[in-house]
Amino acid sequence: MSHPHRFYAPFAPGESGAIRLPSEEAHHALRVARLRQGDPVSVINGQGDEIRGLLSVSGKQNVYVEVREQAACPPPPVALTLALGGLHQEKALQEVIRRAVETGFSRICFWQAEHSQKPVAVHDKCFKTALETCKQCGRLYVPVIDTAPSLEQFLTDFDGPGIIGVTEMEGKVPEPAVIETRLAIVVGPEGDFSVREREVVEAFGLTPVSLGKYIYRSETAAAMLMTLAASIVGELGPPLPISCFPSADPSS
Amino acid sequence: MSHPHRFYAPFAPGESGAIRLPSEEAHHALRVARLRQGDPVSVINGQGDEIRGLLSVSGKQNVYVEVREQAACPPPPVALTLALGGLHQEKALQEVIRRAVETGFSRICFWQAEHSQKPVAVHDKCFKTALETCKQCGRLYVPVIDTAPSLEQFLTDFDGPGIIGVTEMEGKVPEPAVIETRLAIVVGPEGDFSVREREVVEAFGLTPVSLGKYIYRSETAAAMLMTLAASIVGELGPPLPISCFPSADPSS
Repeated sequence: MSHPHRFYAPFAPGESGAIRLPSEEAHHALRVARLRQGDPVSVINGQGDEIRGLLSVSGKQNVYVEVREQAACPPPPVALTLALGGLHQEKALQEVIRRAVETGFSRICFWQAEHSQKPVAVHDKCFKTALETCKQCGRLYVPVIDTAPSLEQFLTDFDGPGIIGVTEMEGKVPEPAVIETRLAIVVGPEGDFSVREREVVEAFGLTPVSLGKYIYRSETAAAMLMTLAASIVGELGPPLPISCFPSADPSS
Repeated sequence: MSHPHRFYAPFAPGESGAIRLPSEEAHHALRVARLRQGDPVSVINGQGDEIRGLLSVSGKQNVYVEVREQAACPPPPVALTLALGGLHQEKALQEVIRRAVETGFSRICFWQAEHSQKPVAVHDKCFKTALETCKQCGRLYVPVIDTAPSLEQFLTDFDGPGIIGVTEMEGKVPEPAVIETRLAIVVGPEGDFSVREREVVEAFGLTPVSLGKYIYRSETAAAMLMTLAASIVGELGPPLPISCFPSADPSS
């Protein structure tokens, strides 16, 4: 049942022979996981490929994996994108990235919100967090993590169906978002959408969705919506086998 | 649209006149939120009651809320319980408590897992985290947070329908859990269930549920299952208005 230790190396699909681990990964293999010559390991490239092989140590720092088996995992049938108004707190940012990987998202785009003072930025640690989460949960794709200068620019470039988290539905019954190959989930920034951003949402025909009458932080709303959307497109196993007795059925 | 600052006080429903804020809350009102005599505030008791009123300051430390309006919110129609094998990390514990409040759970029970070295314990900070989350998101019920000496003891006492997160479904198509007024969601500990615990799960007829082929930490599996179950029973607004085009439909 237990999976061999997973490491990362930026190898190309079809690579044979031996894969050299980057120095940080090599350090982890020898000093943290305390693996030795000949131990079975797995190497992922974050692009859907996984190699199973045996560790080979040469000198103090050169660690290779001798390829025994290769597997490629196709990308998810529906590419999910989280488009989140830039977050102020590093902790919240990392939490969102972890959950995005865990729910099989293909892209995380932080867009510059009008109500946000801090410029959106993506740094090395974002990629590292995504990679560590892949290694931990076994997903093989590291999502693209990028930024957009505004919500409008994100939506113009994305050009596909999307849902947007809102606090008030104002009695509207939204048209469902029909997804075929991709879906964007737009979550507002701390400080909420600006008037201009609301107009943009309207113009692009996003489907409003509500998590009910409570107020959630951006990262919480994002985590909940990612979980619900991933479940709908089949990224989190079969639907939960729960049936509500009539008196408990929320739709009755 | 903005909600007045929320505070906590252990008042009884129907209280009129003035409610005295506990010293920590009084400190927060005056020193952190920097409120003054006459400012509108809200006070919750964590049991479904909310009071709107005006701040009244007497001396340096005595802060009262003069009751203007009272509202009582009925408990959720389905009482959801999270039963989680004790967590080792404080951070994970607090994360689970926050998400349980945010998804409207009524009870969190940490059960002593056979594979867990650390004795399960609930301390003051758990209640504080739950309370802070209530204040932040606007839910009016602080869940009961308790412990059970074993999974078997939890299930014996609970005596109702439950689902249990498993990694392998082994081709089983589970009988749905039928819920009327309550549901338990059982999540395994770090280190997984013991053989004995698996037998207990079988004997109690819990419905196995899977989040797919990936491996999630206990707190992540708990957060995902709480979100999905809360959505099914209507605690997170209407179902997401997403329809999958045939090619994207995971059930086809």
